[in-house]
Amino acid sequence: MTDLPLSPLTRVRRLAQYQVTDRAALYDIVDGALAATLAIVRDGRPVALPVGIGRDGDDVLVHGSTGSDFFRRIAGGAPVCLTVTHLLGLAYARSLFDSSMRYRCAVVHGTASVVPPEEKEAALLTLSEHLMPGRSLEVRPMLARELAATLVLRIPLAEASVKDNAGSLVEEDGDGEDRSVWAGTLPLRVSVGEPVTSPQTAAGTPVPDSVRRTAERVTATSAA
Amino acid sequence: MTDLPLSPLTRVRRLAQYQVTDRAALYDIVDGALAATLAIVRDGRPVALPVGIGRDGDDVLVHGSTGSDFFRRIAGGAPVCLTVTHLLGLAYARSLFDSSMRYRCAVVHGTASVVPPEEKEAALLTLSEHLMPGRSLEVRPMLARELAATLVLRIPLAEASVKDNAGSLVEEDGDGEDRSVWAGTLPLRVSVGEPVTSPQTAAGTPVPDSVRRTAERVTATSAA
Repeated sequence: MTDLPLSPLTRVRRLAQYQVTDRAALYDIVDGALAATLAIVRDGRPVALPVGIGRDGDDVLVHGSTGSDFFRRIAGGAPVCLTVTHLLGLAYARSLFDSSMRYRCAVVHGTASVVPPEEKEAALLTLSEHLMPGRSLEVRPMLARELAATLVLRIPLAEASVKDNAGSLVEEDGDGEDRSVWAGTLPLRVSVGEPVTSPQTAAGTPVPDSVRRTAERVTATSAA
Repeated sequence: MTDLPLSPLTRVRRLAQYQVTDRAALYDIVDGALAATLAIVRDGRPVALPVGIGRDGDDVLVHGSTGSDFFRRIAGGAPVCLTVTHLLGLAYARSLFDSSMRYRCAVVHGTASVVPPEEKEAALLTLSEHLMPGRSLEVRPMLARELAATLVLRIPLAEASVKDNAGSLVEEDGDGEDRSVWAGTLPLRVSVGEPVTSPQTAAGTPVPDSVRRTAERVTATSAA
C-alpha cells in the first residue's frame, strides 16, 4: 500500500508528531467506525452532519435521500471534509495544560462521485454489510423505488490526514513535573447493550445472527 | 428556558419529525459529550476537526493553541458549525431502507468570541471541570505562559438544530412488512475501562478521585 501523500490540506500543523501517513491506519480508522461527520460549505458557511459510513476499497460510501439538499450539493460537486474520530480515552497529566484526549482521527478531503444506478444496489449492500453484517440476508430485497429514492456517494480516500496519539506518553521525560501526582489514562470504548426487540415484531421471534455479529464486531473493534 | 428558534439554518429538512426545539435537550446533548466536530470554511473548502467541549451557561467552550491556524481563523470571526453526536444504537428494520441509527445530535451554527485574558483561567477551569471533574484540585495551578499559549473560544448556543430519534418506532404501523422478521435496536454506549497508570508516576501512587468521578459521569451519561 502506498503512503498517504502530504499536501497543504493534509499536512498536520499542530502536534505533528502524531501524524501517521500509513494508508492501512486510515483504513483501520474507517473500518472501525459506524459514523462520521460530513462537512460542506453552504452559502459560505460550514454545515457538518453525522452520517453512517462504510469503506469500499479505496473509497468511503455514504448515502442519503435524493430529496436532501445536503446530499444533493455533495452530488453536485461541493467539496467535502469527512471526519472520523475514535475517542480512546482521557489522558491525565500533572498539569491541565498537558492533559488531553487519546484519539485516532482521520480527516478526509475531496469531492464525492455519485454511484450510478446500475451500481447502487451493490454499493448499498457493501454499506449495509459494514454497518449490520449479515443483515441483508435476513430482510427482503430492496425495492426499485427505494433505490430510486437513495443517493449513494463515494468519497475517495486519496487526500487524508491521520492523527493518532494513543501510544504516546502523557508527559515528556524530564519535564520537571511532580511525579508523586498520578498521571495516566482513563480508557473509553464503545460497548453494546442487550438487543431491544421492537413491539412490532411477532412474539417469540429470536434475535437474529446479524445483531450478534454486529455486537461482536463493535466490541472487537473498540477493544483494539 | 426559551425554545430554540427555527431559522433557514436550523430548520431540519429531512426526517423533520425528529427535530426537537427544547433548549434543555440541546444542553443535555452538549453536557453528555466530551468531544464534538468543529467545522470552518478555509479557502472555500470545509475543514472539520475534533475538539473537546464543555458548556458554560449558554455557550460552548473550546480551546486550542494560539499557534493553530484553525483556531486563529475561528478567533478571527470565521463562521463555525459545531456538531455533537451521540450514537445510541443501530435500528434493525425489516428492510435495509428503513434500517437506521439511533442518535441524538446537535448542530450549532455561529461565530465564536475570544475569551479575554482576564477570563481565560476561569473558562479553562470550567472546561476542565466538564472533561475531568475535580482534576484541577489535584494538579498544580496553570502557568502564565500556558495561559498565554491557549486560545479559549465561546460558541453561543443560540442557533442550533437538535435531532433525536431515540424514542421512535423502527417502522410505521401498517407498513405491510413481515412481522415474523425480527426488528429492534442494538444499543451502543460509551463505557470506561480500568485506569492505566503512566510509567512516569511514582510507584504506589493511587488513582485519584477525579478519575473515578469522570468514570462515573461517563457511565451515567451514556446509560441515559
